Amino acid sequence: MAKSMVGNSRIGISPSVIVGAVVNGKANYITLGQYSGLSMNPPMVCISTRKAHYTNAGIKENGYFSVNIPSDNVVQKMDYVGLVSGKDTDKSGVFTNFYGAVDKAPMIEECPVNMLCKVDRVVDLPNYDVFFGEIIETYVDQDCLTDEKPDMEKINQVLLSGGKYCHVGSECGNAFSDGKALIKK
Amino acid sequence: MAKSMVGNSRIGISPSVIVGAVVNGKANYITLGQYSGLSMNPPMVCISTRKAHYTNAGIKENGYFSVNIPSDNVVQKMDYVGLVSGKDTDKSGVFTNFYGAVDKAPMIEECPVNMLCKVDRVVDLPNYDVFFGEIIETYVDQDCLTDEKPDMEKINQVLLSGGKYCHVGSECGNAFSDGKALIKK
Repeated sequence: MAKSMVGNSRIGISPSVIVGAVVNGKANYITLGQYSGLSMNPPMVCISTRKAHYTNAGIKENGYFSVNIPSDNVVQKMDYVGLVSGKDTDKSGVFTNFYGAVDKAPMIEECPVNMLCKVDRVVDLPNYDVFFGEIIETYVDQDCLTDEKPDMEKINQVLLSGGKYCHVGSECGNAFSDGKALIKK
Repeated sequence: MAKSMVGNSRIGISPSVIVGAVVNGKANYITLGQYSGLSMNPPMVCISTRKAHYTNAGIKENGYFSVNIPSDNVVQKMDYVGLVSGKDTDKSGVFTNFYGAVDKAPMIEECPVNMLCKVDRVVDLPNYDVFFGEIIETYVDQDCLTDEKPDMEKINQVLLSGGKYCHVGSECGNAFSDGKALIKK
């Protein structure tokens, strides 16, 4: 396979998530493509957001943020809250807000999965704040459960691939299983 | 929409990536579902890997790792290198290795996208090392380019959704565009 060196940009699909925070006493949301799990135990995630964003101060002040996983019903609104800043635009009414154990980060009724996160630390990069958060509570729409467990097919998560929002497609393997055939006894 | 609180686990799709490192002088690989972009400028990513893993010492010693984006041709091998440890198993011959600007992290010929990363810092979590890396070089298979740009459709990235490896599916929106219709003039 011939390879081309194409610079040093990141290429690949990202989960696109809507991050909720309370900023200046109001619910605010921002869309981020820089989000990952970090740890199973304790359950931790990170988000990375440009220092210029309005949301950052609210997360630092309140010590909480939420991660809301989008399905295709919220694509247009997700894109909108990523385009306009809370500095100029009140985004508190874009979604139906709800709150969990603490009222320090709003979550989105219209998203099938919501995770309330407590800030563990903030890692300072040149132009970004990287927030590490411990998941305190995870909410799932009841109609996205099968046998009381989250069902990824029903959740129907939307991803960011290049400049397109995309559905998940067909299965092509079983994790922690397909590779067993290659283990030499 | 009725919600259920289902504990505090992370729910959602992850990019599954194969991370390359030189460990004890040999190419070694591990599969991780904890990977994200952090910054566009400089281009940075993070990976999080359990402290018990064999790979961590090699990344720390050499100061480099690679992120290899899988397509469906490597699913079984990706799963395999995630199942067996370099402590017991020599994984240097599983893929066709190549090296970029430095010989401190192997990359995988069979993966359509490869990013050579220089460690920026290691963030210490209770059970995980979180490596922040600056992307030094990005390689793409020439047959995954269209007009010399990476083509996500040709790259055909595989994701991890629940316990399944999955293709990307149909488009459902345009990022940085669909939300414009909601902006009030």
